Amino acid sequence: MALFTEETSESAVNSRMGEDVNPRLATVMASLVKHLHAFAKDVELTQEEWGVAIDFLTRTGQMCDENRQEFILLSDTLGVSMLVDAINHRRPSGATENTVLGPFHVADAPHYPMGQIISLDGKGESCLFEGRVIDRQGSPIENATIDVWCDNADGYYDVQQPDVQPKFNNRGIFTTSSDGTYSFRGIRPVAYPIPDDGPVGQMLAALGRHPNRPAHMHFIVSAPGYERIITHTFVDGDEWLTSDAVFGVKASLISTMEPGEEGDTMWKSSFDFIMVEQD
Amino acid sequence: MALFTEETSESAVNSRMGEDVNPRLATVMASLVKHLHAFAKDVELTQEEWGVAIDFLTRTGQMCDENRQEFILLSDTLGVSMLVDAINHRRPSGATENTVLGPFHVADAPHYPMGQIISLDGKGESCLFEGRVIDRQGSPIENATIDVWCDNADGYYDVQQPDVQPKFNNRGIFTTSSDGTYSFRGIRPVAYPIPDDGPVGQMLAALGRHPNRPAHMHFIVSAPGYERIITHTFVDGDEWLTSDAVFGVKASLISTMEPGEEGDTMWKSSFDFIMVEQD
Ligand SMILES: [Fe+2]
Ligand SMILES: [Fe+2]
Repeated sequence: MALFTEETSESAVNSRMGEDVNPRLATVMASLVKHLHAFAKDVELTQEEWGVAIDFLTRTGQMCDENRQEFILLSDTLGVSMLVDAINHRRPSGATENTVLGPFHVADAPHYPMGQIISLDGKGESCLFEGRVIDRQGSPIENATIDVWCDNADGYYDVQQPDVQPKFNNRGIFTTSSDGTYSFRGIRPVAYPIPDDGPVGQMLAALGRHPNRPAHMHFIVSAPGYERIITHTFVDGDEWLTSDAVFGVKASLISTMEPGEEGDTMWKSSFDFIMVEQD
Repeated sequence: MALFTEETSESAVNSRMGEDVNPRLATVMASLVKHLHAFAKDVELTQEEWGVAIDFLTRTGQMCDENRQEFILLSDTLGVSMLVDAINHRRPSGATENTVLGPFHVADAPHYPMGQIISLDGKGESCLFEGRVIDRQGSPIENATIDVWCDNADGYYDVQQPDVQPKFNNRGIFTTSSDGTYSFRGIRPVAYPIPDDGPVGQMLAALGRHPNRPAHMHFIVSAPGYERIITHTFVDGDEWLTSDAVFGVKASLISTMEPGEEGDTMWKSSFDFIMVEQD
C-alpha cells in the first residue's frame, strides 16, 4: 500500500491522478504539487502559519467582485503576473517589450481620430503623445490600432470611480494610416497606489513594501500580421520607477516628458512602437 | 537600476522587502516566491492558464462561508494539509501518529461517562469502541480526554445537517481514570465523499480522482504533560483505504472491526492511543 508520508508526499499526490487526464493539466498540476510541497518542506511550515495562509487566501477571494480582483493584485505584487507575461512574450531585441495589462482596461473605449483629446474632465497637466508604429526594419505599419488608457489627475481610472462623469475619461482607440504615425492629447499620468485596503495591502505593509506604481500610460497596440503589444510607457524621473509595486517597469519603456510647444500642451511624450511579425 | 526580468524574477521580488520585516515572515515569503516562480518557469505557464488559476482561486474563496471551507479542501486534496501535519508531528516509532483534523470538529461536544452511547439517532450498525491511553512504556494515562466524532449512517457529520436533530449526534468527550481505559458505543463509521459541488470537486474530476474518504473515526486525545494526538482510526478493508481523497491514511491507524459480543453491539473496535511526553 503506497500511503502518504512526509518523504513521499509529492509522488503520493501526483500518482493519484487518473489516466485520461488532459496531459497539459497533468503536467501543470504535478509541477504545482511538487513546488508547493517543496515550499512547505523548505520552511517547515507550522500549523499556525498554514492557518494564516488559509485565512489570507479566503479573504483574498472574498474581496473580489465586479470591480475588484484581489487575486490579480496578489499575483501582480508577487511578481507572478510579470513573470507569466515575460515567459509568454519573449521578443527579439529592439522590439517593444510587453508589460502587465493591469485590471483597468475596458473593451469598449471610444474610437477617435488622430489628434483627439482623451482627457475629458479638464484636470491635469496637458500632454501631447506622439510617435510611430513601425516594424523592426523601421517601415510604418498601417491600420494599427492603439488602445490607450491612463489614470486621472487624482490617480484613479474612470472604472474605479463609476459615479464620476464623463465616462471614458482618459481612454481612446486610434488607428494609424499609411505613415504609421499616431498622436493624441491627454494628461501627464500620475503615480498611484494599487488598491491597498484589502489582504494584499496588508501583505505589502507586513513586508515593508509600498503600494505605489510609477506614472505610466497603458497601451495595447495591434496590427494584422503582427504580435499584439500590451505595454506601458513610463515617465522618466518618477520616484517609484525602481520600486513599482507590481514590477512592471522595463528600461526600454521609460519615456521622457519634454516641454510642449507654446500654445499647445504643457508636455510632449514621444514613443515608437516596434512590432514583430507573427510566425 | 535592478528591474524585473524573467531571469532575475525571484530576486527582483524578494529584494523589495523592507528591513524591519518579521524574520520568519521574510523567510516564508521568500521561499514562497522562489517556488511559485520556479513553478511558472518549469511549466512555462500560459496567460490563459494563469487566467484559469486566478478564476479558480477566486471561486474557491467565494465558496467559503461559516459551514464550508473550500481552501482547506483544496489544501487537503493537494496533500498540503497532511504534509504540514507530518512536518509538525514527527513522533518516535510506536507512538500513535497524527492525521488531518478535518473541518467537522466542534469545540463544545458533550462530556459523557465511559460506556455512553454517542449515536443518538438510532441509525447505523452499532459498534463498541474500546482501548487504552498509555505512554510509550505501556503505563496507563489518567485524566486523558478523548474527543471523538464520526459521520452518521448516511455519511454526514451533524454540522453538515444543522436542521437535523438531535444535535451532537455521533460526538462525545470522555475522560480516563487511573487505569487509562476508554469505552463508548457508537456506530461503525461509513465512507463518505468530501463536499465536491465546488471548485475542488471540479478539480478532482478534471484530475480523474474520486472525492471519497475511507470510513474513519476522528479522535483528539489530550493529557497533561503529553503531546496532543489529532488522528483517526480507519476501518480495515474499506475500499478507499489506499485512495483517500485527502491522503489521511497511515498504516498504523487502520483498526479491525470484529463482531461484537452477543446482546451488545454488532461490532467491536479496539485501539490503544500511545502518547509521547512533552519536552
Ligand atoms: Fe495603470
Ligand atoms: Fe471525517
